[in-house]
Amino acid sequence: MKNPIQHQRNPEAVLQHVLELLKKAEIMDALASNQETPRQDLVQALVKRQNITALQQRLNSLHPADVAFVLESLPLEPRQIIWDLLKVEHAGAILLEVSDAVRENLIADMTSSELVGVARHLDSDEIAELVTDLPKDVVLEVLNTLDSESRLDVQSMLAFPEGSVGALMEYDLVTVREDINLDVVLRYLRRQKDHLGNAEQIFVVNREGTLRGSLALKDLLFHDPEELVIEVMNQEPFFFYTNDDAKEAASAFERYDLISAPVVNNHKQLVGRLTIDAMLDFTKEIAQKELLNQAGLNDKEDLFASIYKSAKNRWAWLAINLVTAFIASRVIGAFEETIEKLVALATLMPIIAGIGGNSGNQIVTLIIRGLALKQVHTDNIWYLLRKELSIAMINGLLWGAVMGVIAMLLYKQISLGIVMMAAMTLNLLVAACVGVFVPLIIYKLGRDPVFGSNVILTALTDSLGFFIFLGLASVFLL
Amino acid sequence: MKNPIQHQRNPEAVLQHVLELLKKAEIMDALASNQETPRQDLVQALVKRQNITALQQRLNSLHPADVAFVLESLPLEPRQIIWDLLKVEHAGAILLEVSDAVRENLIADMTSSELVGVARHLDSDEIAELVTDLPKDVVLEVLNTLDSESRLDVQSMLAFPEGSVGALMEYDLVTVREDINLDVVLRYLRRQKDHLGNAEQIFVVNREGTLRGSLALKDLLFHDPEELVIEVMNQEPFFFYTNDDAKEAASAFERYDLISAPVVNNHKQLVGRLTIDAMLDFTKEIAQKELLNQAGLNDKEDLFASIYKSAKNRWAWLAINLVTAFIASRVIGAFEETIEKLVALATLMPIIAGIGGNSGNQIVTLIIRGLALKQVHTDNIWYLLRKELSIAMINGLLWGAVMGVIAMLLYKQISLGIVMMAAMTLNLLVAACVGVFVPLIIYKLGRDPVFGSNVILTALTDSLGFFIFLGLASVFLL
Repeated sequence: MKNPIQHQRNPEAVLQHVLELLKKAEIMDALASNQETPRQDLVQALVKRQNITALQQRLNSLHPADVAFVLESLPLEPRQIIWDLLKVEHAGAILLEVSDAVRENLIADMTSSELVGVARHLDSDEIAELVTDLPKDVVLEVLNTLDSESRLDVQSMLAFPEGSVGALMEYDLVTVREDINLDVVLRYLRRQKDHLGNAEQIFVVNREGTLRGSLALKDLLFHDPEELVIEVMNQEPFFFYTNDDAKEAASAFERYDLISAPVVNNHKQLVGRLTIDAMLDFTKEIAQKELLNQAGLNDKEDLFASIYKSAKNRWAWLAINLVTAFIASRVIGAFEETIEKLVALATLMPIIAGIGGNSGNQIVTLIIRGLALKQVHTDNIWYLLRKELSIAMINGLLWGAVMGVIAMLLYKQISLGIVMMAAMTLNLLVAACVGVFVPLIIYKLGRDPVFGSNVILTALTDSLGFFIFLGLASVFLL
Repeated sequence: MKNPIQHQRNPEAVLQHVLELLKKAEIMDALASNQETPRQDLVQALVKRQNITALQQRLNSLHPADVAFVLESLPLEPRQIIWDLLKVEHAGAILLEVSDAVRENLIADMTSSELVGVARHLDSDEIAELVTDLPKDVVLEVLNTLDSESRLDVQSMLAFPEGSVGALMEYDLVTVREDINLDVVLRYLRRQKDHLGNAEQIFVVNREGTLRGSLALKDLLFHDPEELVIEVMNQEPFFFYTNDDAKEAASAFERYDLISAPVVNNHKQLVGRLTIDAMLDFTKEIAQKELLNQAGLNDKEDLFASIYKSAKNRWAWLAINLVTAFIASRVIGAFEETIEKLVALATLMPIIAGIGGNSGNQIVTLIIRGLALKQVHTDNIWYLLRKELSIAMINGLLWGAVMGVIAMLLYKQISLGIVMMAAMTLNLLVAACVGVFVPLIIYKLGRDPVFGSNVILTALTDSLGFFIFLGLASVFLL
């Protein structure tokens, strides 16, 4: 269990180890008792201590992804200390690995010359990824340190909109012509080894740079070196356009088990390549974002952000929900006279509203998933609505009867039980309509149904739930 | 836009095309007017029609993943027709691509001899994947058709628990010894080409089968054929144990941008390999499952399942939510006298309960995400609780004041506004505690906090919200 690979098998152990070293170095205590000295100066002063050297060595021997994990798992103060202990040549790779929220927080604390220093150790596609989070003046400085080719790469990359294939592709490419033989390719590749990176295939283009095919490196092993590229290459490689949707590209990678794919411009000229690891990072980021958005959280919410920042992050959601809750409350307000005469209604009404919300939420989830998987479309939406209405009818009558009997036994009033059952069935029918149509409409308006569907659903199932129950009660019970 | 690759760029177009062919073939109408003939016989009888031949050709020319997409996007009836039109040699690969729910549904409709026929076209790791969904007697029949080596593979694979690396690995391996030179490796590989599949590296083992290293195929291209394997191989490849958690493995693939990795048993003997596409499928499946579970849906819920089956699938969730809603309702019931005296309370109480639920839900989401990313642990849970309590205090006083003023203006009663503000602040504090601790406790009990956290949260914020508001009102307003 002593080799470094064993350690990396368990990032939590790494974190634990770093925390121990941090404690041993007594750096937190030194900081706490030296509040007037600036943190960075103090860290510099402390670096000579033996335990800190151990900590620094440990950190600089870690994979950037593991350092990123450590940084993300620490509260702001120790996070900054760890950050200050890292070598500048590792900092860039780590910045690319951390979440958006943590990156923003780390960058905010760096001087522009530090940032320029960090960028010096990155490739042009990495710089392009980082640049969107940098202050404007730093971006210019960084671009000035680049040679003209790299600068052009960064600039054209920045021109692609977020969420497009162009914004995620790599520029480092090795290309060959189709009319040469494999032996020539092999000799060429040996010279280009450094540009190959982790590529498992190279691309074949013609004189105009148009994509002609792809050549798996493996095929070079198994074919006669005298064969021509055109005889061996895949003549119909799966390719993407720069303006393709990155989400579609990710799903194509998954469907066809791709490892990498060429990216072309509108003239079918090869401009870059897309790799499975960029796709995997993108997919993970999107999933995280949707999870947070669904709960009304900003995707820049950092677990360890300051209290004030986090509180502010949640205001919009609180406000929206207060508005919808207030509307539902006014619906009840309209029936205050009814409630005064039969206070049992106030007791029972949250059951009707709540169950509509819960069932509707299930339907919303199914429809959103169906939309994301492209299984829901205008052809089958009526089929799905009919199905959900039938389910609502069955469940409303069945569970409405159960609750109706309970209400009847509690309040010794048969008509109250019947109103209860009717209201529950009606509100489940409302939930079915809302659950099917709200995500669909949001989707058709070109927005992400993950954000907003649930609020609208709850607003409607609450307000209409109260209205149906109290309305039926006013008519039939008083 | 005529070549097949263009089509696959857009699976929706494929679906549209299949639907058109289905319509042209008038197969649905024939079925509707021939309800007494069994579906399969009818499809067989219709196959000779010209339009059906076109449909069948189109289907059998598609990638299994695309056929799976088509099947998942169709209601039960046309889904079965398409299924009957597919060639048996494609059926296995397609069964592996469809979602669990659809697979179950397709298998239920097949005879055991059909299933055995389908399995004949699959590898042992694919059979192992399928076997868990097959009826017991079919499993035995399928195992009997296999040669003894494959049968052993399938059986040992089935012995690994779901969610372990062992259950996801592939058995097809090409291994070499470390003391031979690259030229020998190359000659050996040319003979083993078919076993290589899409492997980008092979593994190096000693006489006992112990993993010694990995050799990238690419390295064979760039090194002198006279060099020994041991000089060129990666001596510390990232490997997994068969009983490692598949979720951890997936996160390691992502962290270190792996394409494939060796899997060893407890004696460090090489037994299989894990590939990025298996990891990607696994990750997607888990994400889907969590999304559905969070809404209380079974992960076998199929958008096009029968009404009765879907209705039944939702009963457990409905029942749980009815119980919690009923408890909250009884809390209100205890205050019926108070409400009778001041009916405004009935109107305002859902606001207090709702806002607690919404805020708590945000905290639950953050904590669940933090737990999944291993950023939340016992060391920092108190820090997080303090932070969430502070946020609750700020937001409670701020937004409670807003709602308090509104309540005051509506009902011309200052004390009602103050009770409103106090209740909102207290319920947000309750939501903060519950939101932090409930997912953590579920996690510590070894269960997935995605399932259940929200129900418990809502039960508590509703019941306690009503109790706090109506309780304060009883004491201070009457």
